[in-house]
Amino acid sequence: MNAVDLINKTKKSVPLTDGEIKWLIDSYTAGELPDYQMSAWLMAVCFNGLTDDETLALTYAMRDSGDIMCLDIPMTADKHSTGGVGDKTSLIIGPAAAACGVCMAKMSGRGLGHTGGTIDKLESIKGFRTDLCVQEFEDILHKTGFSVISQSDSLCPADKKIYALRNATGTVNSIPLICASIMSKKLATNADILLLDVKYGSGAFMKSRSDAERLADIMERIGRTAGKKCKAVVTDMDEPLGKNIGNALEVEEAINILRGNERGRLYEICIGLTADILELAGKGSRIECVAMAENAISSGAALEIFRRTIELQGGDPAVCGDTSLLPHSRFTYRVRAARDMKILGFDTEELGMVSLLLGAGRIGMDDRIDMSAGIVMSAQPGDYIVAGDTIMTLYSTICSDFSEAAVRAVNAVRSEKINCHIPLT
Amino acid sequence: MNAVDLINKTKKSVPLTDGEIKWLIDSYTAGELPDYQMSAWLMAVCFNGLTDDETLALTYAMRDSGDIMCLDIPMTADKHSTGGVGDKTSLIIGPAAAACGVCMAKMSGRGLGHTGGTIDKLESIKGFRTDLCVQEFEDILHKTGFSVISQSDSLCPADKKIYALRNATGTVNSIPLICASIMSKKLATNADILLLDVKYGSGAFMKSRSDAERLADIMERIGRTAGKKCKAVVTDMDEPLGKNIGNALEVEEAINILRGNERGRLYEICIGLTADILELAGKGSRIECVAMAENAISSGAALEIFRRTIELQGGDPAVCGDTSLLPHSRFTYRVRAARDMKILGFDTEELGMVSLLLGAGRIGMDDRIDMSAGIVMSAQPGDYIVAGDTIMTLYSTICSDFSEAAVRAVNAVRSEKINCHIPLT
Repeated sequence: MNAVDLINKTKKSVPLTDGEIKWLIDSYTAGELPDYQMSAWLMAVCFNGLTDDETLALTYAMRDSGDIMCLDIPMTADKHSTGGVGDKTSLIIGPAAAACGVCMAKMSGRGLGHTGGTIDKLESIKGFRTDLCVQEFEDILHKTGFSVISQSDSLCPADKKIYALRNATGTVNSIPLICASIMSKKLATNADILLLDVKYGSGAFMKSRSDAERLADIMERIGRTAGKKCKAVVTDMDEPLGKNIGNALEVEEAINILRGNERGRLYEICIGLTADILELAGKGSRIECVAMAENAISSGAALEIFRRTIELQGGDPAVCGDTSLLPHSRFTYRVRAARDMKILGFDTEELGMVSLLLGAGRIGMDDRIDMSAGIVMSAQPGDYIVAGDTIMTLYSTICSDFSEAAVRAVNAVRSEKINCHIPLT
Repeated sequence: MNAVDLINKTKKSVPLTDGEIKWLIDSYTAGELPDYQMSAWLMAVCFNGLTDDETLALTYAMRDSGDIMCLDIPMTADKHSTGGVGDKTSLIIGPAAAACGVCMAKMSGRGLGHTGGTIDKLESIKGFRTDLCVQEFEDILHKTGFSVISQSDSLCPADKKIYALRNATGTVNSIPLICASIMSKKLATNADILLLDVKYGSGAFMKSRSDAERLADIMERIGRTAGKKCKAVVTDMDEPLGKNIGNALEVEEAINILRGNERGRLYEICIGLTADILELAGKGSRIECVAMAENAISSGAALEIFRRTIELQGGDPAVCGDTSLLPHSRFTYRVRAARDMKILGFDTEELGMVSLLLGAGRIGMDDRIDMSAGIVMSAQPGDYIVAGDTIMTLYSTICSDFSEAAVRAVNAVRSEKINCHIPLT
């Protein structure tokens, strides 16, 4: 086979065969196909897309580039979210589903750019380890029904190499490529139940609901074709998920939800997603599954599972009773309303960028994170607030100069006739 | 500047500034921008094109990547053809224009794939050298008014690097990229008069007349913007240019034209193109320029200039009087009509491929050429021929097995109900 011929086919929208796609991926992973040919092909895919059959073949080729995990557990569930701002749902859904008898074996990545990662969030708990070997992962799952492991280098090496290239060549934004990247990892992780949460809106990869639905649709079909119990849901990221953005701040909010101290949008979303997993596992009707999920939280069973998993993964379980044990920031800054206003919404991606600026995220994969940094929102869309009220509070330990972050935070608020002065508190 | 931002702009059809394009080309030429980012950008250009301003900026950036030739001659002309099959017009037009007082300073490339190159053709004359230094080139131009020099590595290194990458990434076929590649070299060669011959049809880069016209139009505008007297013409490559294809065979045909022994389509095209150059040089009206061109050939003045240039470039000038001194092939094969038929046309690209197969061209830049190899056409579109008549004759020294070439040659003939048997002669 000849790479130029395959590039030209995709350029002319002639579908590649399964064998041609496998050859492309295998040759690239083996270092035989140079980066410049792969990036030209990826750009052609960005313009012309791939058929469903090609997307499936690409997903399988990437899955088969490395190991496939085989756990000695009868039925496991995994959840994937396409990257959001303030998304701590996995920390709530995992223990809640486990409390209802569904084993949540979650493989997670780290945050990059304006989106956070579950691994980083959990590492804000002192001592928490996610670099488990498969045996440790399996042991914890047997004991608590919930564990989180960081993505192994031996799974989907093709995806790792292609993702880095896409990041450097403006070819990230393509539904079939996003689909194959996510699904190859999920199929290699090899859980029986797969819940996919595709976000859309200003804080998400997918800016429009229709794109998110297309991605959800193709991912769900690929999951089912591969024999998984699979459901993809589409959720709005036009506002942050919950009040807190930033690693320790998000763990704190998750614990508050698990304690039953907080209700509202985040709680409702978590109950819905947990019920989705329970339904996929055949635990009962929708109404029964919602009731089971609510009971898992109100009974404290989910919190207890979270506590035991923290302990088994080397973390300090006392945080579940006292969130002040989590890292706290040295510097604080309140963003206040300059006059009476109605909050219309937020530029969620920009809030993610503010959080990044405060030290909560990383630009390059090797950047260090300020676990204490982030944002706590005091207002939400629809709120009427008066002059001087706090809209949000910025936290950081590594950054004491809030001037740029504050200006960007103000600009991320959409309100009726806002005219904000930014006094230091 | 950031390459990913620039790739994304082109991907979204946001025009780049002159400075951004210059940065892309300069960084790439300097080895600072990796191949995989350039190939992604090139593919985005293939899909979205470039504006005229961007194409101009790209041409200038590529021209400025190396030396610009400065000859001590008041007015020089250069001609470029976009690659054809059997195109020996430069060998006729050059001496003819010089005979009319316009100095033809031609920089040429070598052939690749199914298209031939002027340098290769001239090197079929024993001893002929084209690796001249600028001083030698200038001296010959002063003496005869016509010289051909092979493309210097110091001119347009950016084009050389980008062309190799395009060839390996399926990004050759793009009008702005083709335009910038040709025009950067022509502007670096720096002739005052520029005649551009854009071919279309089965044997050309541009398959449709409309694409050829678009390319001709943008090249002409760029040439004029750069201060050149510039004209671009569009010519049909649905049949070979003249009867002979292959290096020595084409030199023989050119000499026959210069001797005044042959008329027909090739002669008419050469008179027209020579008149175009004379008009650009302000030598007179169209009618006067055509008469001057015809006289240059009928008087023998053009042949004499060709003879002297051959001598000055180290070649054997006796070939002008006796073409049997050119390399002759060892093996010959006649492709005959199997029955009475009317010739409708030829697949010119396929004839170029047959010629390549016989040894007349190269697939890689380092392949050796059989100077004697090629095809002589005995029939042309519109001819009625009877069974047993020769349609074309194949020549080769390095290839004695004509079976594949003959089958492909037959398939390259479009006729009414042809049914050809292929007897060896």
